Order: sequence, then structure tokens, then C-alpha cells
Amino acid sequence: MLRLTTFGESHGQVVGGVLDGFPAGIVIDFPLIEKDLMRRKPGQSAISSSRDETDTVDFLSGIFEGKSLGSPIAFVIKNKDTRPGDYDNLKDVYRPSHADFTWEKKYGLRDHRGGGRSSARETAVRVAAGAFAKMLLKPYGVEIIAWVSGVGSITSNIDFDLLSADLIEANPVRCPDKDAAIRMYEYIESLRLTNNSTGGIVSCLVRGVPLGLGEPVFDKLQADLGKAMLSINAAKGFEYGSGFSGTAMLGSEHNDAFMVDARGEISTRTNRSGGILGGISNGQPIYFSVAFKPIASISMEQPTVDKRGNPVLLKVEGRHDPCVVPRAVPIVEAMAALTLADHLLRNKVSRM
Amino acid sequence: MLRLTTFGESHGQVVGGVLDGFPAGIVIDFPLIEKDLMRRKPGQSAISSSRDETDTVDFLSGIFEGKSLGSPIAFVIKNKDTRPGDYDNLKDVYRPSHADFTWEKKYGLRDHRGGGRSSARETAVRVAAGAFAKMLLKPYGVEIIAWVSGVGSITSNIDFDLLSADLIEANPVRCPDKDAAIRMYEYIESLRLTNNSTGGIVSCLVRGVPLGLGEPVFDKLQADLGKAMLSINAAKGFEYGSGFSGTAMLGSEHNDAFMVDARGEISTRTNRSGGILGGISNGQPIYFSVAFKPIASISMEQPTVDKRGNPVLLKVEGRHDPCVVPRAVPIVEAMAALTLADHLLRNKVSRM
Amino acid sequence: MLRLTTFGESHGQVVGGVLDGFPAGIVIDFPLIEKDLMRRKPGQSAISSSRDETDTVDFLSGIFEGKSLGSPIAFVIKNKDTRPGDYDNLKDVYRPSHADFTWEKKYGLRDHRGGGRSSARETAVRVAAGAFAKMLLKPYGVEIIAWVSGVGSITSNIDFDLLSADLIEANPVRCPDKDAAIRMYEYIESLRLTNNSTGGIVSCLVRGVPLGLGEPVFDKLQADLGKAMLSINAAKGFEYGSGFSGTAMLGSEHNDAFMVDARGEISTRTNRSGGILGGISNGQPIYFSVAFKPIASISMEQPTVDKRGNPVLLKVEGRHDPCVVPRAVPIVEAMAALTLADHLLRNKVSRM
Amino acid sequence: MLRLTTFGESHGQVVGGVLDGFPAGIVIDFPLIEKDLMRRKPGQSAISSSRDETDTVDFLSGIFEGKSLGSPIAFVIKNKDTRPGDYDNLKDVYRPSHADFTWEKKYGLRDHRGGGRSSARETAVRVAAGAFAKMLLKPYGVEIIAWVSGVGSITSNIDFDLLSADLIEANPVRCPDKDAAIRMYEYIESLRLTNNSTGGIVSCLVRGVPLGLGEPVFDKLQADLGKAMLSINAAKGFEYGSGFSGTAMLGSEHNDAFMVDARGEISTRTNRSGGILGGISNGQPIYFSVAFKPIASISMEQPTVDKRGNPVLLKVEGRHDPCVVPRAVPIVEAMAALTLADHLLRNKVSRM
Repeated sequence: MLRLTTFGESHGQVVGGVLDGFPAGIVIDFPLIEKDLMRRKPGQSAISSSRDETDTVDFLSGIFEGKSLGSPIAFVIKNKDTRPGDYDNLKDVYRPSHADFTWEKKYGLRDHRGGGRSSARETAVRVAAGAFAKMLLKPYGVEIIAWVSGVGSITSNIDFDLLSADLIEANPVRCPDKDAAIRMYEYIESLRLTNNSTGGIVSCLVRGVPLGLGEPVFDKLQADLGKAMLSINAAKGFEYGSGFSGTAMLGSEHNDAFMVDARGEISTRTNRSGGILGGISNGQPIYFSVAFKPIASISMEQPTVDKRGNPVLLKVEGRHDPCVVPRAVPIVEAMAALTLADHLLRNKVSRM
Repeated sequence: MLRLTTFGESHGQVVGGVLDGFPAGIVIDFPLIEKDLMRRKPGQSAISSSRDETDTVDFLSGIFEGKSLGSPIAFVIKNKDTRPGDYDNLKDVYRPSHADFTWEKKYGLRDHRGGGRSSARETAVRVAAGAFAKMLLKPYGVEIIAWVSGVGSITSNIDFDLLSADLIEANPVRCPDKDAAIRMYEYIESLRLTNNSTGGIVSCLVRGVPLGLGEPVFDKLQADLGKAMLSINAAKGFEYGSGFSGTAMLGSEHNDAFMVDARGEISTRTNRSGGILGGISNGQPIYFSVAFKPIASISMEQPTVDKRGNPVLLKVEGRHDPCVVPRAVPIVEAMAALTLADHLLRNKVSRM
Repeated sequence: MLRLTTFGESHGQVVGGVLDGFPAGIVIDFPLIEKDLMRRKPGQSAISSSRDETDTVDFLSGIFEGKSLGSPIAFVIKNKDTRPGDYDNLKDVYRPSHADFTWEKKYGLRDHRGGGRSSARETAVRVAAGAFAKMLLKPYGVEIIAWVSGVGSITSNIDFDLLSADLIEANPVRCPDKDAAIRMYEYIESLRLTNNSTGGIVSCLVRGVPLGLGEPVFDKLQADLGKAMLSINAAKGFEYGSGFSGTAMLGSEHNDAFMVDARGEISTRTNRSGGILGGISNGQPIYFSVAFKPIASISMEQPTVDKRGNPVLLKVEGRHDPCVVPRAVPIVEAMAALTLADHLLRNKVSRM
Repeated sequence: MLRLTTFGESHGQVVGGVLDGFPAGIVIDFPLIEKDLMRRKPGQSAISSSRDETDTVDFLSGIFEGKSLGSPIAFVIKNKDTRPGDYDNLKDVYRPSHADFTWEKKYGLRDHRGGGRSSARETAVRVAAGAFAKMLLKPYGVEIIAWVSGVGSITSNIDFDLLSADLIEANPVRCPDKDAAIRMYEYIESLRLTNNSTGGIVSCLVRGVPLGLGEPVFDKLQADLGKAMLSINAAKGFEYGSGFSGTAMLGSEHNDAFMVDARGEISTRTNRSGGILGGISNGQPIYFSVAFKPIASISMEQPTVDKRGNPVLLKVEGRHDPCVVPRAVPIVEAMAALTLADHLLRNKVSRM
């Protein structure tokens, strides 16, 4: 129901999007859009890419006197600090573990400048659109918070009940476990100095999800959340609720017993289901994790081949993050918000 | 492009499906459909549910003189061994970790007999449709093989180069590591005797994927594969290529170097990417794993509540598997085949 | 939102459909389904095809204890009086103005028995699904009535205010203008005797349409109604409101002045707009007409060619209507109901 | 397969669109885009609106070194000559036969400046996108030409075999029948002087359509063409082939006999089918007509009501065409091109 189309290449004029199906009459929270974009922006701290983008959004349509019109909301974000010249040496060479090779073989041509359409710059558009989805969800009491739960082999220890956006934003790694955050920061900094990169895990908690979101068969809520997350650049895995570790449990341990809670409502004693039963939200918090690989753009010398199959030793120039997960946090939130908002709208017609 | 609609409730007259967008002129491989359905069927071995279904497919349309017509292929599978009476005590009670509660709250009513639409019986239809997708893929040399790689905390050790369908089908657990298979079988058998259940992991390898399948942004190949897998009942997680363990690697370790292979084609030295770069298949084998929770239907007594919130001690009758993953193997294959066949068709229009 | 998939070939086992997106909890009006199917059925009167079909619907899913479950509603209608042998002489010959030629060229093969998938028998499924849509619309006060307004060059004279379903169903031509109906009947009867056929026009009036249905750009209400009508076999044209004759009017004559009506609501003095402004229903009655060509199956000898291009003199056997429009009336109603019900659901999310 | 999303309000910053699914590697014909936009532009002649827009397209994405990249093609057209102040008196008043009333009731608010999203200015985007579709169709030999066949009650006489784009563009009315064109011009001019407007008919001929385009049931080629045409502002009707007049014919007159033509290919002697049989193109020319109502914006004084239901005498200011059909010609062509190009892509997967 809520449809986002994105467009734009990394080193073209703009990246942008059209959000269609956004209901009319909603007061636009411009500061929220700006805030989320700032969280994704390069150059936020010493450990992120130094590309300098103001990432301000220019709205082209769909908003009138501060409210949504019901018509498509189009917007663009200018690409200011483009340095297409940085990529001239990539014109005929395939960067290892990048989309250069597959894009060229699929389409027969590619924009080699900074990854073109396959660049993660596209995710800025998702973050802006996600802020709109958050506006839709807010009146229902839905709160989406994501954070970095792992970097390399450094894990963290988090109490869901104490989690808050402030705690997460208190450090540049966006890990609410302070001790882990310090070790993660130091690890990332060491990789920046050695021109290497690392992967990590972003986790997400959604509180206040209305009961009944999700379609029971192909469009199960977890299936749509999983697709949304796996569509983010560099994502390699998704799990929700008990996830992969739940496979080692017994049914008798894993089942969430129903009970009546303090407010007199039917709830569950545990939440290994991760807030979703049979593809439909059950009113408990939804939580999930997304695995991100180490980013492929490293400035070390790497063996590869060129278009004609000749071996090449490549050093990828450009400005890249040694660890992408701190900046992936708002992207995960945005994709969760878009998915939930879509299902919120779909659920309005499940019965008359 | 290839659209599957499924219908039917567990204890209604039939389950069935309509496969639309299947190209014309393809010779239907009826034995393949039957074979895959047999692999999913209950009652195959001592460790699976004793529900007795012949699971034969009745084709209603779209096939003429043994070939696809290009029109929708509709088919039904009769529900023969229904015992709706088994479920009478579930009419007003919510089974722990089942869809009873969420379905009833979303729709305001439910078919309580055996889970109705939320029953895994629906997956028989996916398996039949998946066989059609395999027919589409076969001329391209695509081979999809799934197997059980974990049950409870029992893991397995598998060499991708030696993997074959025969090896997998050689034991009722469908684990090609014989030693692990024996331990898994014994573990599942012990759970059957104690009325409990366990989770497990199904892995899948796809060889011979044509280069160029997948769309580069929202419909990345891994995103659609992930959605397909997470739409299977009881799935809790999905990872492909290096997956969650890849998050702990360095970029310099993780990147797959391009090289020219023995046939003179551009290939990669390693395959941590899992056959997909930037959402598009790169010609290397695709591999992924799906986590399944322990099935919620256990015959032990469990605390829950009824519709009015009264506490109830429930013992779920009916015939259930202590471990669902051996029967999930053909379902995972079917969903992979449907996803890949869809992208095969979509790729036909990526350039003129 | 409301999605109908149909399947089945004219002389296969069944024709059928799956209606997905139908809201849960609606009491199914089985007699309405039966009544509408009876109106479309062949063999109703001396002037329609003598194919003998009971056209009873077998529901396969989605209904429980007389109510919709929210899951897909699948149903089939058996093809009983099939005489595939009637069509043996058509295997290699292209019937003039039929889909034989185009189907075979598009798909490379065809089911030649009675037109296969391209047969108007498929419309029985639309009529059954349309009855469901009518159930959705009824609580909103929407009333859809179609009738035959022209046969060959015989036109009719109708006062919208006096129109009723009873008046229309009072004669086999389904024309509420009694005098015209008699002339139409005689004309059709004369064509039956001379093995010829004629075209005609079906008009439709929809009263009680809620304000606000329709999307403002590509999915304008008239665009979706037009598509629905033009997807009916033999339809050649669609017009709504003032239609083609409105092109000759002046703006000052054509504009519908707004006023406040007796109930104090904003209404229009005239209704040349046909109940739709800017693609959105304005609360006035919607009316439109659909042109149907003379049905191509005539039992006269006609020149044509066979597959190899050899000239052939063809006499189409089988049982056909000399004039299809009386039986098209419930089909037009069904397609209108499906379109309006879909937009009713879509409109639920146009604002929060 | 080819998806156009448009956005923008008449008096906002821009109107624009995103064309997704356009195949990679196609050389962009920029002059064609410009030429078609010039044909739609206001201010072309004395008989069209005097709004002064350069209507130049700014491409934001999807094109690299003059070729399509396979990624979404986004573009905007600036709104330069906006005079939102012209519309201040319309803020609280509903213009007769405009979308003001329905838009406001559906969405709860509206951009009253020049019709906002419901303005025909949106069609500039369709024309630009249609030029891309023409680029797709050109290598297949498809030629689309539309013209004005009627204005008010003035009809024209046209020989399809002699029709050419040059003949149509030879006069400002775009009617290839010179005598009729003169009378049409004079009639339109007289209406401009009396502040009135008239409707008209645009006809379209498509030569060189490949055999096999169109889906046989709901997405019949004529159904999608009809929807496309009826989604154009002010369209009231659509007919193809013999259309409404074909309803008065006998089957024996109407059927198109198959024959083998001079090139040895199976063709038809007549073309009452309008190039489409059973929803699928048969290789003969497609032709259809679209009825347009007199444009509602007239500068005469008209009775209407305001938001509160008070009677108002309204004189619509702004710059409007007395007859929209000459400018609708390129819009009809564009919508035909988009529909045919979409079906060309869809047809690529009808058989393997």
C-alpha cells in the first residue's frame, strides 16, 4: 500500500525517491527527517567516511501547507561532494565483492563512478522515506529503535527494558552497552589505520506494535521485514525472535505461554516468538537482528581482473567506512518503519 | 512474473493453488511433482506425523496434451485424512506459539480445525508449484538441493563438492553427513517418545545459476530468497553466503578475488558472497541456510488461556512431527525454485 | 486490494477462481451467487445457446460456518456438457474474428476445444466473484443494475428514475423498455434462424456510490471501470456520463452546477459527469455503456485459412448465442461490483 | 513491466516522473522527447492556453553517456509560469465539473492552486515518458499516430492509408482532413471569444504492431489501452476497431476473414477487429478513438456553492484552452506507446 521508488546514481546529480500511498492530512515532521538523515550521513565521526554531504532534502511534491496531500511525495537529495575522477581507474576493472561485475553482465553497461546505482548512497532516500513511515506509526504508539549489537567478534549485552534512543545515540558506534562500545570503537579505529574493514550486527526492537499486522501466508510480517532488511546493501542475514539459536531449543522451552497481564489483556509470559505468530503481530515487542558483511571497499591492494580477464592489482580509492554498521542503524529503522506502516495500512481492510 | 496464489484450510475439502505466468509449451514433468510431494508428505518414516495423506495432485487447468498452455495452472490436493473432531477442544483456547490468537484478533473469526489456513498443510501446494519452477530452470542447468544441516544442537559437516540429492535422500533425516544423521535421528526419536519437539536448520545449495538474476535495489535476489524462506511456517532466520559468521571477518579476508577460471570465464577464488553480488547472481553457486523453531504443537500439558482469558491447562491432540526440518527440505527447495524462476523471467527484459 | 484470479478452459474439467483480499466476517449470500449465475447461464431462453450447464459453484476454501475467513476464497464450476468432439474440425483452422490465431501465435500451442481459455465460459467465474463484491458493497447502500439498451440498430428509451432490477428481468432480452424489448427479441430470433448474430449495448447504473472512490491519476475510477468492461469478451467500447455524445456539447452546457440538495448535502443539478469528477466518485449515480460486437461464432459458411495458410470454407459447429448482450448483463454488473469494491477498500487508506 | 510513477502539483515547484523497468543500453533520443513535449505545450497557437512554459526536461537518473542504465529514469519539468495568486478566489469554492469537490472530500484537504495534482499539467510527464516507450517500440517497426477526428459536431474524413504525422502536424488543430480542420479552427476560435469550450475526439492508428501483444483475460490489450486512455483528464469514452457502430452489424458482416497476403503471411481481409483478437494483437493495424468532454474551466459566470454550501456565482480565471483535443494528441500517443511497450516486455516471457 505504501510504495517507495528510489532513483539516482552515487555520483550523478541527485538521489531521490517517490513515496506513493502516503495518506493525506498528516502533519510533516521535517526535523525528524533531518535528524534521521544526519544519523546516516557520512562524516559524522572519526570512524566514518569523510565524504562531505549536507544531505538536505528538497521536496518536490505531495506536501501543501505542511501537510501530506495524499498525492505522491517526491524528493531529492543533491550529490554535492562527488569526485567522479576518483573512480576513473575502476572503469574497466571489477572491484572484489562489489556489484561492478554483476551489474555490467546483467545490463551490458554500468556507471562506474562510485558504484552508480548500487552505491549505498541510495539508502539516504530510504532513511528519508522511513521518517514518513514513522510519522504514520507514531499515533499508534509504535516506537522503533535499532542499535549496533556486534562489531567483528565483539558482542554486547543489552537489557531490552532499559533500551532507549538516547542510550544508543550516546556514542558514535551506536551500541548501548558502553563497555562494548568502547572496544568496538577502538577496533574500528584500528581498521581505519590499516585500511581494512569489519562486519557487524544491527539489532532492532519495536515496541507498541498493534495486534494484527502481517498477512498469514506469503506476506508474513517476518517475511516482509526480512526482505526489507536483506535489501540493504551488505546485509547477509536476518533473524527474529529466538532466531538461529532457537533451533537448538525444545518445544517445551520455546513455546510462549499465554497469560492475562496486569492490564487484563492477553499477553505471553516469554517472547521467543519475537512478537509475531503465524506471520501476524501479537502485540508483544518485535525484535530482530541483521548481519552485515565487512564492507568490500578497502584501500589495501587486492588481486582482481579487468574486463578482458587480465589480472590486475587494485587499490580502491575513494572515501569509505571501515565499519558500516553504526550508519546502518537508521537504515534498519527506516526499513522497519516502511514495512510496518505498509502492513498497518493493509490491515485496515482485513475486515469491514 | 511467476505468481503463485494458494488457498485452502487444513481440514477443509482441499488445499490448492494457481500458478500464473508460467510460460507456454513446457512439457510437464508429472513424476517430479509427485516425487517432491512424497518428500514433504507426512507419514514417510517413524519420526514424522502419522497423518495419512496420499497428496496426489488434481490438475484443473492450464495443461493440454501434456504441455503448459500459458494460461493459469490450477490444481488441488484433497484433504483425505481430516479429523476435525480432534480439534474440538481448541475452539476456544489459544495454543501457545500458534497463530490461533493472532488470526482470531486480526480477522475476528478463525477455522480452529488443525490451524485452518495457518496450517503447514498449505506448504504442499508450494512444493507442487516449486516442481513447475524446477521445470523452468532445468534447461538452464540450475540444480537446487537442500538438506538438514542441524537438528537441536547437533551440527553436521558437509563438503559442497560432494553433495548430491542421492546422498541427502539416503536417510530419513535428509542429512548427508551420515554420522550426524544417526545422532539426529536418535534425538528426534527420543523427543517423539517424550512428546516434545526440536528446531533445526535447513541449508540449500544452488548450482548452475545463470549470471544476472536479481534486481539491484529492493528486489535483490537475496531479499526475495529471504522473504520466500521466511514465509515458510516456523522459519525464524535466513542467512546466505558468509551469513552471520561473516560479520566477524575482516574485509581483506571476506572479499572474493576475481580470477579467470579453467574455462576462460571470470570467476571468483572464494565464494563468501554466496553467489550474489549487489543483489545479482554472479554465476557462482548460491548457498543459504534457514532456521526453523521447534514446532509448537507438542502433546505435553501446557498452561495457556481461553478466549475469555481464563487459565487453561492444554494438551494439544492431533498428529505432529517432533522435528519439522526433514520435511521442510523440499519446501525450501520449492521456494528457492519459485524465486529463481521468477527472476529468470524478470531478467529477460533487463535489456533488449 | 480485491484480487480475482480465474482459471480453466471451456472444455476442461472446470472453470474456477480465487478471490483474494476479501475481508473476513462477511456472511455469504449463497442465493445471490446462484441467482447471478442463473442470469448468465446458457439455455435460459429460446434465444440463448443450448449448452446445458447447471453452473453450480463448489467452494473450496475461505468460508467457515457461512462467513468469510479472510483467506482466499477458491471455487470451481464444473464443465458438464462438454462436447470436445464438436471442435475436432477446428484443430488446424482459424475461425474468423476468434482468438484461435492470436493465441496460437503468442503461445505456440492452444486448446482448440471451444476456445479453451479464451472462451466466454470464463465469465461465469467473474459473475460468481462479482456476487461477493456485491456483498461488500451492499451495507454501503450501493445498488448496481445493468440492462440491454441496444441490439443491432434497435435503441431503447429509459428513465433512470424508474429503473429497477425487476423491470429488467421481466423479459429475456433484459431491456426495461418493453416495446424495444419485443423488437429486439424478434430480431434476435430471426438471426438464430438464419445462423447469424448481432451486437448490442449494455448500460449500467450504480446508485448509492459513496463519495471518494477512485484514485486521482492512473487508477481513476472510470479508467478501472473501463478496463474491467473492456476485458469482457466481445466488448468494443466504453463510455461513461455524457460519453461520446458529450464531445459535441459546449462547456457551458456540459458543466454540472453544484447546489445544496433537499437533504442539505452538496450535490449537482445535472449529472453529465456520470458520477465521477477527476477520477473520484462525487456521490451522484454512476452510469456507463459497453459496446459488444456481434459474436463471431456463426454457423454460416465462412472463408478462412488453416495453419499452413490453405484456404478453407468453415462452418463453426457448437452451440452459440445469436446475441450475447442479454447474458452479458450480469457480467457487466459483476465487473462493476468488483471494481467498486476494490476502490472501496483502497479508499480506506486514503487518509488516517 | 514498464512502470511510470508521476508526481507534482500544477503550481508547485515541478511536475515529474520515474520510469522504472526501462531496459538497459537504449540510446536516448532526446530530440524526440523535446518534440513531443512541444506538441503538448500550452501557447503553441492562438487557440491554446497562454500559460508560458518552456517544458524542458531535467533528467535526474538512469542515463549514462547517452544510454539507459537499466535503473529508474527520473526526470522533472519545472513549473515556471505559475501564478498561484490567480487561484485565490477558488480556495473555498468548488468549480463546476472539476475535481475540487471530490479531491477535498476524499483527502480532507487540497492544493487549490490550478487544480494541484488533478491538473492536466501532469500529462506533460506522460508525454516525456511516452517518448521513452516509443524508443523501445521503434526497432520493432511500431509507428503510433494520433490526430483530431472530431471537434464539437464537426467530423472528419480520413483515409488510413494516407495518414502521416506530417499531414497531422500541418495545422494547429492536428486534423489531417484539411477542410474539417479549417472549420474546427474557426469553431474553436469563436468559443475562445465567447469564453466557452467544446469537446472532441482523438483517434489513433498504430501500424507495425508485433503479433502476440496482450494478455488473454484481464489484461487484454484493448483493456489496458482503454484504461490508459480513460486515465487522461477529460476522457469520457474509448472504442477500438468497429467500436460502438459495430454493435449494429451482423456477425457475417463483422467477421474478418483470414487470408494469406502478398508476403505469404496470414492476414485478414478486413480489420473490424481493430488489430486485436481475444485481447491479443493479430499483426493488423490497431485503431481506436477517445472522447474528450468540453473542458470545464470556462471564464463565463457559473452558479456553484462554496465549502459551507452557500450559493456563489463563479468566474474561473486562469489561462485555459477552449478545446483541449489538439493538445491531447501527443498524450494519446504517449499512453498508447507506454501500454504497447509494457506488453512488448510482458510478451517476452509468454513462452521460453
